[in-house]
Amino acid sequence: MQLSNLHIERIVRMALEEDLGHGQDVTSNLLIPAGAGASGVLRARQDGILCGLMLALSAFSLTDIDFDMTIEAQDGDFVKEGQIIASLTGPARSMLTAERVALNFLTHLSGIATLTNQFVEEIKGSGCEICDTRKTIPGLRMFQKYAVSIGGGANHRFGLDDAILIKDNHIAVAGSIDEALNQVKMLAGHTVKIEIEVDTLEQLQEVIDNGKADIVMLDNMSPADLKKAVKMVDGRMSTEASGGVNLSTVRAIAESGVDYISVGALTHSAPAMDIALDIDV
Amino acid sequence: MQLSNLHIERIVRMALEEDLGHGQDVTSNLLIPAGAGASGVLRARQDGILCGLMLALSAFSLTDIDFDMTIEAQDGDFVKEGQIIASLTGPARSMLTAERVALNFLTHLSGIATLTNQFVEEIKGSGCEICDTRKTIPGLRMFQKYAVSIGGGANHRFGLDDAILIKDNHIAVAGSIDEALNQVKMLAGHTVKIEIEVDTLEQLQEVIDNGKADIVMLDNMSPADLKKAVKMVDGRMSTEASGGVNLSTVRAIAESGVDYISVGALTHSAPAMDIALDIDV
Amino acid sequence: MQLSNLHIERIVRMALEEDLGHGQDVTSNLLIPAGAGASGVLRARQDGILCGLMLALSAFSLTDIDFDMTIEAQDGDFVKEGQIIASLTGPARSMLTAERVALNFLTHLSGIATLTNQFVEEIKGSGCEICDTRKTIPGLRMFQKYAVSIGGGANHRFGLDDAILIKDNHIAVAGSIDEALNQVKMLAGHTVKIEIEVDTLEQLQEVIDNGKADIVMLDNMSPADLKKAVKMVDGRMSTEASGGVNLSTVRAIAESGVDYISVGALTHSAPAMDIALDIDV
Amino acid sequence: MQLSNLHIERIVRMALEEDLGHGQDVTSNLLIPAGAGASGVLRARQDGILCGLMLALSAFSLTDIDFDMTIEAQDGDFVKEGQIIASLTGPARSMLTAERVALNFLTHLSGIATLTNQFVEEIKGSGCEICDTRKTIPGLRMFQKYAVSIGGGANHRFGLDDAILIKDNHIAVAGSIDEALNQVKMLAGHTVKIEIEVDTLEQLQEVIDNGKADIVMLDNMSPADLKKAVKMVDGRMSTEASGGVNLSTVRAIAESGVDYISVGALTHSAPAMDIALDIDV
Amino acid sequence: MQLSNLHIERIVRMALEEDLGHGQDVTSNLLIPAGAGASGVLRARQDGILCGLMLALSAFSLTDIDFDMTIEAQDGDFVKEGQIIASLTGPARSMLTAERVALNFLTHLSGIATLTNQFVEEIKGSGCEICDTRKTIPGLRMFQKYAVSIGGGANHRFGLDDAILIKDNHIAVAGSIDEALNQVKMLAGHTVKIEIEVDTLEQLQEVIDNGKADIVMLDNMSPADLKKAVKMVDGRMSTEASGGVNLSTVRAIAESGVDYISVGALTHSAPAMDIALDIDV
Amino acid sequence: MQLSNLHIERIVRMALEEDLGHGQDVTSNLLIPAGAGASGVLRARQDGILCGLMLALSAFSLTDIDFDMTIEAQDGDFVKEGQIIASLTGPARSMLTAERVALNFLTHLSGIATLTNQFVEEIKGSGCEICDTRKTIPGLRMFQKYAVSIGGGANHRFGLDDAILIKDNHIAVAGSIDEALNQVKMLAGHTVKIEIEVDTLEQLQEVIDNGKADIVMLDNMSPADLKKAVKMVDGRMSTEASGGVNLSTVRAIAESGVDYISVGALTHSAPAMDIALDIDV
Repeated sequence: MQLSNLHIERIVRMALEEDLGHGQDVTSNLLIPAGAGASGVLRARQDGILCGLMLALSAFSLTDIDFDMTIEAQDGDFVKEGQIIASLTGPARSMLTAERVALNFLTHLSGIATLTNQFVEEIKGSGCEICDTRKTIPGLRMFQKYAVSIGGGANHRFGLDDAILIKDNHIAVAGSIDEALNQVKMLAGHTVKIEIEVDTLEQLQEVIDNGKADIVMLDNMSPADLKKAVKMVDGRMSTEASGGVNLSTVRAIAESGVDYISVGALTHSAPAMDIALDIDV
Repeated sequence: MQLSNLHIERIVRMALEEDLGHGQDVTSNLLIPAGAGASGVLRARQDGILCGLMLALSAFSLTDIDFDMTIEAQDGDFVKEGQIIASLTGPARSMLTAERVALNFLTHLSGIATLTNQFVEEIKGSGCEICDTRKTIPGLRMFQKYAVSIGGGANHRFGLDDAILIKDNHIAVAGSIDEALNQVKMLAGHTVKIEIEVDTLEQLQEVIDNGKADIVMLDNMSPADLKKAVKMVDGRMSTEASGGVNLSTVRAIAESGVDYISVGALTHSAPAMDIALDIDV
Repeated sequence: MQLSNLHIERIVRMALEEDLGHGQDVTSNLLIPAGAGASGVLRARQDGILCGLMLALSAFSLTDIDFDMTIEAQDGDFVKEGQIIASLTGPARSMLTAERVALNFLTHLSGIATLTNQFVEEIKGSGCEICDTRKTIPGLRMFQKYAVSIGGGANHRFGLDDAILIKDNHIAVAGSIDEALNQVKMLAGHTVKIEIEVDTLEQLQEVIDNGKADIVMLDNMSPADLKKAVKMVDGRMSTEASGGVNLSTVRAIAESGVDYISVGALTHSAPAMDIALDIDV
Repeated sequence: MQLSNLHIERIVRMALEEDLGHGQDVTSNLLIPAGAGASGVLRARQDGILCGLMLALSAFSLTDIDFDMTIEAQDGDFVKEGQIIASLTGPARSMLTAERVALNFLTHLSGIATLTNQFVEEIKGSGCEICDTRKTIPGLRMFQKYAVSIGGGANHRFGLDDAILIKDNHIAVAGSIDEALNQVKMLAGHTVKIEIEVDTLEQLQEVIDNGKADIVMLDNMSPADLKKAVKMVDGRMSTEASGGVNLSTVRAIAESGVDYISVGALTHSAPAMDIALDIDV
Repeated sequence: MQLSNLHIERIVRMALEEDLGHGQDVTSNLLIPAGAGASGVLRARQDGILCGLMLALSAFSLTDIDFDMTIEAQDGDFVKEGQIIASLTGPARSMLTAERVALNFLTHLSGIATLTNQFVEEIKGSGCEICDTRKTIPGLRMFQKYAVSIGGGANHRFGLDDAILIKDNHIAVAGSIDEALNQVKMLAGHTVKIEIEVDTLEQLQEVIDNGKADIVMLDNMSPADLKKAVKMVDGRMSTEASGGVNLSTVRAIAESGVDYISVGALTHSAPAMDIALDIDV
Repeated sequence: MQLSNLHIERIVRMALEEDLGHGQDVTSNLLIPAGAGASGVLRARQDGILCGLMLALSAFSLTDIDFDMTIEAQDGDFVKEGQIIASLTGPARSMLTAERVALNFLTHLSGIATLTNQFVEEIKGSGCEICDTRKTIPGLRMFQKYAVSIGGGANHRFGLDDAILIKDNHIAVAGSIDEALNQVKMLAGHTVKIEIEVDTLEQLQEVIDNGKADIVMLDNMSPADLKKAVKMVDGRMSTEASGGVNLSTVRAIAESGVDYISVGALTHSAPAMDIALDIDV
């Protein structure tokens, strides 16, 4: 995935304005002369997968056009504690003003990429893929999903509009799985995929019999049931396990043979990765 | 703290539009008749401190004006697994459309309030207070800081503009701690507090000798050094410990006698609290 | 499809502000007393499919909360010349102020729905569906696609993000149809459909052999070739004809057996439907 | 007329964001390497008046700063089928991403300029001018009116605020044509022109007798009545015919001697002009 | 003039957000219980012309929907020191939060209306009108011009787009007054008035000879020259004096017989009128 | 204080769009050829303190990137009537388009800086400082406060969020000065200063006895009472006089020994400073 410049600029500008509040970095304005220069290096303080470098650098360049930046690592690189990510020189005042916003993006997105990567590594060789959910931090979905992809994960739908996901309540209103799928197949645009959530193997059989779903989400099933489910589906649609997934359960789930495992924690509970800006004024 | 309605409406509207993407909940539009009603309950799926209820409810009311809502718990309440937080009735389609945005706010902010509360409980009786930092998720700072206050924590400054925090780089440019403080005291508005960060007791002594700081941040000091620092300060300004704080170290730090402990993890690494919407269509 | 209230309000507010310019309806402000009332009826001046009523009514209610409105027809209704669509009573000044914006939405979207319906009627019984494209008027895509669906058409993708459409240039860079499809299948999220455009039956054969596309777009083929193409595909994926479609060619294309025909003219060249507001002051 | 850069940038940015939806061109991101270059030419696929080139080019430059563009034709030029309008080289991925937005502006505005020009050509030599109305597509009024001027038409008022247009309902509330004109003349700013709409020659006589109008709009009159009207007015104010104007009626209307003919269809019903981007990757 | 609700809401919301900064009235939140009520009266602290009441009241209602308000005076009323303008009851916390924004609008706009009125009174009986200019405070033009009209003044053009004003530099580029007027008359839309600025009676004669201007601005002329100018014009166009106008010079200027006198000070230098909110908690 | 580029660009863009209305400078577009160049100088037409130069220059550079500008004076300089502030060369059309917006910022902010400076000069040598209030023009607070600082004044709080100011109504609800201060001290963040307003020396004594306020605002006291108040406070907190301050009273107030005098008139009633753009086309 490539982030759009328009989206990067918009979100970074918003973050800078949030931090500036009424409009100034009062400390730096009082203590750092307008003309003073500084150099700095973005440096990992722990091991992890780097993500969000373009947002971090934009925080500096949107604050001041006079920064020179050299990139030493790329989004997706595994960086080690102490490793230099990028170095920059420019106005000292603006460097201090933009520092926190730059780091807030970088540490948050690298945290997501790193956690995603741990899940991905955990199921290595299983042929299964880790994917994200819509359980994201409001305002950052695109960027969080980008971080998941940088960490080696796949992206589930981006919103309510770009894929159909039929859940229990939709089925209840439609009357049955069969009716829900028929109705959706008839009415949905042909460029939209249809996914349906099931809790039991009986429900799964209904989905298989209907034949119109592209993906089935197997919700909160045991690895044993997942295995049966995969066998039942037999490649006729994609299978996705969800619910109760963590680093200690994910391997067993993956070995059930499902195609995808969706993990809300990637985006709603990833701890930040520690990255700092070492400044030399 | 009370959140402004204007800010709540703005952020919830943004989140709804993010989730709607090009503009529709395609699944619910296809499967739920326009006139169908539903009732639902927001229910805790784990113990924790509730936070963000007004944002969650706004997600429903901004999607559709036809919701009736009954509040069963308040921000700041400790809710138990299974406890009902609020119940709502209204149009089924809109309830499903707004569900994820409502929960994304509620689970994220309750996660922060809950983690904050764990820190607060950990140092109970010490006379010390837990506070937040500017290490927040871009776009949500006000709401995250609200969650910290709901969890029993105190708020550090909200941005670069509302308090002075002199760090090592500022001191380096100014020439010395003494010069930095003198310069700031002379130039800063009289309604703004002055905080300065020190790494050593020698630096602390300079700050004490100068006498112009309102708060001193004691960065990465051992509990033993913090104790000495508190003694040296002797009530002449507020003391704040920061760096390397986690749930297992915080008690020892608090017992050093410092007034405040600032914890970045409250806002950058709090796991979401599990809360769900149980819908009856 | 149901339009989101948030999107309706945003676009109508924008349109009202555009028409108010510096901020006033100078004629009505000078001539209509603040307290004067009026009644009006929205009336079709030609036969057609009504679309956009909610936007039209929002133009009045966002200008002034004091309107009473009675709806006499619904989006999707075929209305005859002279037929009343809705009646409203309220402040005369605001009715005159909002009139043009209300009509601009209503006539434009009804024009699209009506044109779409003509295409749909033209191919009635063929089993084929008419769908739209991304050739839309900037800023109105969601609303124009809504109008297509109201007119009986289907919606193609809403943007660059919600489905994959591999065109000649993508194939050229990838090296071949086979490589393009393999690459996309491997990297794309599992909730996203893959469509590929082909110009010749040879290319189509490559797509069929590869087997990873969900939809094939048959670009600018004669009805005869389309017929061959449909036979070759034999139900293994959806088929979509595009290029050179107009009301006199569409029937022959539909009878080739393709599943979908995409028509750019629906959204880029639909003439407005004539609808007026008859006011009684 | 010259379009303001601020307005161009705002509308093009909006259009790009609309097309990017959640934020990416998923096809191009998956298939086009970040470093790949491409060249392309904007080429007319039918004869017409070019309009909107600056918006089209902005779509590319706002997506990516690395485009080189050479302009081969200007807004207002009559371009022939096959003629090259502009050529560009730059990043292949961004060229594909921006293509549709660029073309949507260019084909829509050139369509309006071309249709306007047909009306203008139709009445050549009559001394009469074709002008637009407020019957525009919401959000694009300024750009549509620019296209009318590029096509050789004149601009009527841009909104409710920049000129007075007294219609039947205003007259009804004021009591009479005389009272309406007197009231407006007394209260309106001196920099604002006064136009009044009449349906009959009797009403026209009242307007003439009053003497305060700058322009009279002769609504839905036959060419014969228009001729009489022009004679009655005898140069004391501008005359504008409106209603029921199309390419087959416009010449007769113009020959009545009216100064202006306003045509809603220019902006609400102009078919797009076919223009394409031929890309070489 | 009537202010549009959309514009009022937008500007008041902006002002409230500006005052709330990161998002709270920290004092009131800490000291006023959420449920506490209060009553208050808006009261003039000096004599003057009231203006901006709807903006002031919107500051309260946008902060909290639970206000009851009684209006005791209207925009345009001459209020005496001590006179009650409006009374309100509602939540104490929100009343205190909105107070300053409400007053900032009310005192600024009433200040403009009052100053305008002083100019208007000063030239009473002369038949001349006072009007404003584009020398306004950025962001508030519409509201400042509304205040001028409330104070009894007339409005000059609202922006660069709604009337033509030819100044010395335009004339210099065009070559001569005659050429400038001819060019503009030929190219401008027929709904737009043409004003031209002259410094000397010789220039005025050129304007008169040309005959295409609707208004002539007589810049920085003495009352004696203005008198000659009015005689020369002899009713063939509107005359407007500008430059060096203040309360002691305005009467003499008005008595020269010019139709309008434009005064920049009305909007760029009007002192605020003193109005307060007396609160009873 | 340094203004943030982000804030400058946002406000200047807004002002340009306000002046352009529907989107064009109709006069310059009709009379100035696209390629014509011009040179101009910003020149003071009266003595005063320059302020807002960056905003003025941004008005030109945001309108057109092709301006060359040379700065001859800086914000804060005392400029004499006739002195050149900056010179610019660039496109004539854009120079005329941006002129008024540039001057509106420059004359308004220089007016504030100049008035502030008059107050500052008036109390020279007293050791007291002049500061601003929240009585500002909506939308311009940050810029007005910047102008106050440029004029030699100090800044009071920027909004409701960055300092606590306890007024009579807060005290009334809290029950007493003592309770209000205790409550605020206990609940407020440690980075926020506490100011309290008193009307009498008795109230002041309560504040002194409580000991928790950082600043006391002495409202509407006579110089004699202020003197007593300063003596009572005896350096234990900052003292601020407010109410009834003008250029003839300020010296006496300052000589009372108070630390700060807050003056609403600086931002709500400063007359514009006369500055012009002399253009050579």
